[in-house]
Amino acid sequence: MTAAVPSEASLVLSADEAEWQRIIDAIEPSVREAVALVVKDHAADSVELFYTTLRQHPDAAPFLSNELVDTRLHAALITWLTSLFSVAAPDLIALVTTQKRIGLVHARIRVPIQAVMHGARLLKGELRHLLFDRIPSKEDLSKAIDYVENMMDMASETMSREFVRDLQKEIETDEAYRLVTLGQDINLEREIQKAALLDWGHRVLFAICCAAPPPLPSLEGSAFGLWLNHKGSLLFPGPFGLEPIKIAMRKIDHVTIPALLADAPPKPVQIYELQAQIEEIRFLMDNLFRTSEARESGRDPLTCTLNRRFLPTILSREVTQAMRREVPFSVLMLDIDHFKSVNDTFGHTCGDRVLRGVAEKIVSACRASDFIFRYGGEEFLIALVEIDMDEAFRIAERIREMVSDASTDSFGVKVTVSIGVATFDGHPDYTHLIEDADKALYKAKDLGRNKSVAL
Amino acid sequence: MTAAVPSEASLVLSADEAEWQRIIDAIEPSVREAVALVVKDHAADSVELFYTTLRQHPDAAPFLSNELVDTRLHAALITWLTSLFSVAAPDLIALVTTQKRIGLVHARIRVPIQAVMHGARLLKGELRHLLFDRIPSKEDLSKAIDYVENMMDMASETMSREFVRDLQKEIETDEAYRLVTLGQDINLEREIQKAALLDWGHRVLFAICCAAPPPLPSLEGSAFGLWLNHKGSLLFPGPFGLEPIKIAMRKIDHVTIPALLADAPPKPVQIYELQAQIEEIRFLMDNLFRTSEARESGRDPLTCTLNRRFLPTILSREVTQAMRREVPFSVLMLDIDHFKSVNDTFGHTCGDRVLRGVAEKIVSACRASDFIFRYGGEEFLIALVEIDMDEAFRIAERIREMVSDASTDSFGVKVTVSIGVATFDGHPDYTHLIEDADKALYKAKDLGRNKSVAL
Repeated sequence: MTAAVPSEASLVLSADEAEWQRIIDAIEPSVREAVALVVKDHAADSVELFYTTLRQHPDAAPFLSNELVDTRLHAALITWLTSLFSVAAPDLIALVTTQKRIGLVHARIRVPIQAVMHGARLLKGELRHLLFDRIPSKEDLSKAIDYVENMMDMASETMSREFVRDLQKEIETDEAYRLVTLGQDINLEREIQKAALLDWGHRVLFAICCAAPPPLPSLEGSAFGLWLNHKGSLLFPGPFGLEPIKIAMRKIDHVTIPALLADAPPKPVQIYELQAQIEEIRFLMDNLFRTSEARESGRDPLTCTLNRRFLPTILSREVTQAMRREVPFSVLMLDIDHFKSVNDTFGHTCGDRVLRGVAEKIVSACRASDFIFRYGGEEFLIALVEIDMDEAFRIAERIREMVSDASTDSFGVKVTVSIGVATFDGHPDYTHLIEDADKALYKAKDLGRNKSVAL
Repeated sequence: MTAAVPSEASLVLSADEAEWQRIIDAIEPSVREAVALVVKDHAADSVELFYTTLRQHPDAAPFLSNELVDTRLHAALITWLTSLFSVAAPDLIALVTTQKRIGLVHARIRVPIQAVMHGARLLKGELRHLLFDRIPSKEDLSKAIDYVENMMDMASETMSREFVRDLQKEIETDEAYRLVTLGQDINLEREIQKAALLDWGHRVLFAICCAAPPPLPSLEGSAFGLWLNHKGSLLFPGPFGLEPIKIAMRKIDHVTIPALLADAPPKPVQIYELQAQIEEIRFLMDNLFRTSEARESGRDPLTCTLNRRFLPTILSREVTQAMRREVPFSVLMLDIDHFKSVNDTFGHTCGDRVLRGVAEKIVSACRASDFIFRYGGEEFLIALVEIDMDEAFRIAERIREMVSDASTDSFGVKVTVSIGVATFDGHPDYTHLIEDADKALYKAKDLGRNKSVAL
């Protein structure tokens, strides 16, 4: 029953709606009518030109099959354009709802935002030229162009807000699915798929051993091939994931198998070749599963500190919190002095022990709410939440002293560290904070090492 | 050495660069000069108006502190504007690089794209009005406006492409961090934080028991509070996550503790009140960890099929594959006939057994590369990859027969299902495919149930 009475909230315009209202209110009815007439007369031609041009845009073309444009999009765009520039003032709520819905659909089918903007730019140009031809008074012309540009651009703004919001949700869900699946049954999955690959290999070999081989099953259409294309590509996105396996698979289907069938009976060397190619796929699969495991863990295996992968996530969040909640936030950049010579003189085992030892000292000097990253070979970045410059400097000094005071026994060698300290200064880009900490670290090195320096 | 010779690839323009080139080539030097002059004379005023207006935009305001605008942004925007509209034709590579860099920084600090578009629209309007005032020839005016609109909009397109690309990477990393952390030490984390909360509670009680209590530690500043604000908020994003706990925490810090200190010695009822509030936080924490575990698993606990959370991810990917690789793709929508009456007559335990039994039949009729979702209460959606309509219909019939042939024993009751079959028809939006399957399912129901119907 409550739905029948408009709630107070629905009577208050959002910033978006208020902006639309301003644009609509600003235009005199006579100018709106003139624009509506121009649009009505030329909508079909403009839309024709729109799709002809946009089909040549590499970002847009994949979404614009002839059939889709002819059966749906062409008419839909004409309707959109004529209702945006109607003779009567358009209904505000319908206007906003339409643009939001378009943004949502674009996000769902992943139409690139710049392709939509490109199309809008074309249409605006067309309409502008028509207005220049048809409206003689310079004053009216200026107003008509303002109106057209504002309406079109405002539509883009409303669509884009919805597009980005929805895209964000979709990307999160994609990534969640990938990781949930990776986390749940990844070892089982690996074994099942290795078995499926072998199963296909056996069936091919059996078929070949028959005097008159039946049509051989393709690897791409086998249980393994289908898994690879549909589930594997979800688990291992990116160019370095499945591509080498897919290439090997296509080679088997399109080169090796046809060659086997051409010679009857097949030569042993051809059968060895097939087996070697299957082995290669198994090797590539193992490798893929293994490297993905390391990458996904997000931690540096040697020191158990976070690896750099999650640095942007964490620092940008902390900078935002510092800005919004007005709490301090500081960063230490720590470098192990003369680490290269330790490695060169005493060997990698000793170097590894030093890295682990320094990481332990850092952990013991920090709180559970801080974040410790292995930033580079012998560099650590420490994010100290709700800590100001003075306190950060004290923590840096504590770490520096703990390391230099440690007996030679604990590291196997005498070790010192240099530390740069920087604190959030209002700049919204977290890379600025890292640069500051880096500068401070260089000063500490310049001052002779085994020093903490605050910028 | 190769870097010194421009490679062939660098001589080929990208679609973006080619578009910039076209815009720059189209403008006559005299018109470009006229525009450059207008921009140069009025850049400062336009930029002033730009920031004054944009500061009132709710999406933009949080990024525009007075200090940031005065010390950095104001001058940077004037430089950007004057170099975009320079007297000489601008350097193409520098132009594209600059817009990309801006898009990247905007993504990093998460400036909403529509706020940038809003700002660009303001600037374009300003420049247009100036051109109308300053260029008397209508022909030149039309060209000048084309030039300004195209340059500004093209800058937005280049920025937006980079913005979305970078945002996508950042969102993926955020989500990965959240899930990796959730997956790794979530149980340990829960116990550590419960202990940290109790520890704070003990310290407060001890302090209160002293005759003259020292300043009590705030819960928000305690190890627990810091964890909650900095790590907890990463693990449990969204409005229903940490908010109730944060509210309870603020109540303790700002109401309960001050009241305790006002009465010395505190009344027992006040101490009980504090303990009850700490207990409430523990309860909320447990709840949060538990529900998040269920949600993240992505599976329906009863039938072990996928839950709806990952439906958009999977269907949009499969529709894209069907489009790009030109392979078929089909969807079954399955509903258990008269399920409500089974539940009402034989009880929920029987209903659950039916759901599990039907899910098992579906799994056994599908391949490892297919996706099976619990779509609703008694509805399942099955995504059959690289399967055309005829084959999909055969699979539907197999499932339908397996269910109706099952002895009453296996389900505890006689069960049938109705199935709608739909196949990918070129429409890029996956919701269209679901709608088709739904329509077919309704037909199957209309035809008396225990039927498969292909649309």
